[in-house]
Amino acid sequence: MDKSVDVAVVGAGIAGLVAARDLMRAGLEVMVLEARDRVGGRVLNAELPGGSPIEVGGQWVGPTQHEVMALIGELGLRTYPTHTAGRHIAELGRSRSEYTGRIPRVNPLTLLDIAQTQFRLDRLARKVARSEPWEYELAESLDAQTFDTWLRDHAHTTDGRAFFRLITEAVFSTGPEDMSALWANFYIGAAGGLDALINVVDGAQQDRVVGGTQTIALAMARELGDRIVLDSPATEIDWDDSGVRVRAAGLTVRARRAVIAVPPPLAARIRFGPGLPGDRDQLVQRMPMGRVIKVNVAYDEPFWRAEGWSGQANSDRRALGTVFDNTPFGGDPGVLVGFLEGRHADTSARLSPPERRALVLEDLAGYFGPRARKPIAYVEKDWAEEEYSRGCYGAFTTPGTLTRFGPALRCPIGPLHWAGTETATAWPGYIDGAVESGHRVAEEINSDRTTAVNSR
Amino acid sequence: MDKSVDVAVVGAGIAGLVAARDLMRAGLEVMVLEARDRVGGRVLNAELPGGSPIEVGGQWVGPTQHEVMALIGELGLRTYPTHTAGRHIAELGRSRSEYTGRIPRVNPLTLLDIAQTQFRLDRLARKVARSEPWEYELAESLDAQTFDTWLRDHAHTTDGRAFFRLITEAVFSTGPEDMSALWANFYIGAAGGLDALINVVDGAQQDRVVGGTQTIALAMARELGDRIVLDSPATEIDWDDSGVRVRAAGLTVRARRAVIAVPPPLAARIRFGPGLPGDRDQLVQRMPMGRVIKVNVAYDEPFWRAEGWSGQANSDRRALGTVFDNTPFGGDPGVLVGFLEGRHADTSARLSPPERRALVLEDLAGYFGPRARKPIAYVEKDWAEEEYSRGCYGAFTTPGTLTRFGPALRCPIGPLHWAGTETATAWPGYIDGAVESGHRVAEEINSDRTTAVNSR
Repeated sequence: MDKSVDVAVVGAGIAGLVAARDLMRAGLEVMVLEARDRVGGRVLNAELPGGSPIEVGGQWVGPTQHEVMALIGELGLRTYPTHTAGRHIAELGRSRSEYTGRIPRVNPLTLLDIAQTQFRLDRLARKVARSEPWEYELAESLDAQTFDTWLRDHAHTTDGRAFFRLITEAVFSTGPEDMSALWANFYIGAAGGLDALINVVDGAQQDRVVGGTQTIALAMARELGDRIVLDSPATEIDWDDSGVRVRAAGLTVRARRAVIAVPPPLAARIRFGPGLPGDRDQLVQRMPMGRVIKVNVAYDEPFWRAEGWSGQANSDRRALGTVFDNTPFGGDPGVLVGFLEGRHADTSARLSPPERRALVLEDLAGYFGPRARKPIAYVEKDWAEEEYSRGCYGAFTTPGTLTRFGPALRCPIGPLHWAGTETATAWPGYIDGAVESGHRVAEEINSDRTTAVNSR
Repeated sequence: MDKSVDVAVVGAGIAGLVAARDLMRAGLEVMVLEARDRVGGRVLNAELPGGSPIEVGGQWVGPTQHEVMALIGELGLRTYPTHTAGRHIAELGRSRSEYTGRIPRVNPLTLLDIAQTQFRLDRLARKVARSEPWEYELAESLDAQTFDTWLRDHAHTTDGRAFFRLITEAVFSTGPEDMSALWANFYIGAAGGLDALINVVDGAQQDRVVGGTQTIALAMARELGDRIVLDSPATEIDWDDSGVRVRAAGLTVRARRAVIAVPPPLAARIRFGPGLPGDRDQLVQRMPMGRVIKVNVAYDEPFWRAEGWSGQANSDRRALGTVFDNTPFGGDPGVLVGFLEGRHADTSARLSPPERRALVLEDLAGYFGPRARKPIAYVEKDWAEEEYSRGCYGAFTTPGTLTRFGPALRCPIGPLHWAGTETATAWPGYIDGAVESGHRVAEEINSDRTTAVNSR
């Protein structure tokens, strides 16, 4: 089957859908080619016993995520606050602390170390994110080291270092040793600081979307209607200055422009003819995905609340290092969500499903007592196994990559435009960054069109 | 077209050809699917004015590279020594030194710094390479940092550090900041030490192959005959315990086993059905290729020899950081070969061809005087632009990768076996490593077959 449109969009995740919707509204004919049998990409709902939706992918939004908040408003969706009342649990070193507010009760020396390191990190991150990160004056030196090396040079206590490892795994779903220190600083700065990334109230975990976050994608998909073609993985894109020809399963789409809205390592797996310039190809060889197995565990009621716990728990000694109350809107059933991140994802992915379930329930029982061992449902998602994600939450850059190939991240090549949360300047790796990137590529295409019309 | 064989080999580089030849000799039916219109992979001849062959890819062999030396003997090919008589040139810091033997004349403090750092590096590298590198007792700590961080902690003079950067670029075609310190140490140890990597006499650059190194591939290809199918890039491999179905252009090959003998980032671009386990996929997301533009410049005669120079030159202040006399067997014409490596490859790839040629000739004139500006031929190859290599000399691992995913490098998955120089235990990244890996996969397949027969 052959189709001809103005713009072909590869990928019906949030970035691709936003781009397609903007372009459609600007009067262009678009077609969105999606590899899977569904829209949403790394944002996906599942169903709990009783029928409530639960997110197995990206789920939270926060008050400084202006792009996604605007989109949610525009689509007529509603948000509700993440449950946070009660005592949080923090296990660090040999101690367990139960606390309310934002600061765990840990030894004052550790606290000072954490506070000083965070101060330095936030100050540096702000500077890095103020411009293109590869143009920051100390970019070369930061990009020559891993974030682990940077943390070792700045945090001096064992527990302080353990805290930042835990935070890194929770935010990046990979260890500090995997990433460039420049990328880590850029990412933190582009979110407005470490607190914005890790906090619930005023932070990236503050709010949830009624009906589950995939409703954002589903609402846009409804507007786009049959402009979206499912089960059509784009495998080949031929291009020249006049346009593109995209092959996706049995379909061939000709268009003046293409938007590639898939994660960088998957963009590397599309065959381009002619092949892309070395800079772009080397970039996508060097932006691997983080790795996380997300587990939602449902109980007949949110029993932890009755015992005074918020459901929020962190530990540097458990595979399930980060846990939140994830009870859906309406309060039924009670749900705890936990994350197996980075190296914990590696080791638990090698277990059999019953072994992994036992590991997760043991960790939850360690936090919240034996009732955690009796769930009514257990829903897990290993994103590294998903052929069309191959990891979550997002891609990161390895050392040396941003300073060598950073500009290739967003720079269009002929008729090819690059979207996806990894290309965002604010909140990369988040739904918000995906929305920003979708608007940006639509704007790139529209402004070129305006220029072309005006110059006739 | 449908074919059915015992083993399908993907890639007719040295590794794939060695594997196919071993399997054919063991009585199995093989078919080699090659994406390009030629065999050899990263080993390729071009032709000089007058018809002499010249290598634009991998070219040298050394006395401790036992696998490739044995193969050369077996194929009836001959080697000849790299020209090395005369004064070498070393530019480091502000000084230029002309020297014979192995040690440039540099300031004694720099020399001491280099000697001490090399001593520590060789001692560590030996330990790392003695086992699987991810099992070395300090593996985690080495893999958590870049090689640049390691060098900064061990080399203390500006020129000493510049020396190791130059060496790293020459050996790995990438900067020390791009790589895991564990990978760098493994690679150095697996070659038998830094001297073995950088020396001409007794080292990896000692000998050349009469007729050009691609003759190794061409000789094996002659034996394999029509078992090799060119212009057939494998794009999809369906597999289960009983075998594989490989699709390559119009061809479908069914086989009991497949050997994947392409570089890791290109193996990532083949679609496997079912998709490969997360560990393997994450590994190939995190093994990017080095980058080099190799330039052979021919002159009517090797004029530098008459002036007492060997043709060997290194500089930390020129884009063309490493140069050798590359005059072909027979001595006509005179050829200098230079390498634009790592970041030098990035910046020079962005120049126009005439600008890049001017840059190279200026650097050669800087080393060898104005006669270098008048070549009779200029032959360059940018391996990052090659769709079916996407970089050279080889892939490396980014920090955190070997300790997390190292075992996935060689471990077969059902009927899928992994070859290629990056999977070698000795001389990875060299032709020798490719030969080792080819023999290993053939042995994996043969020994399984023997077991199967015996257990009937």
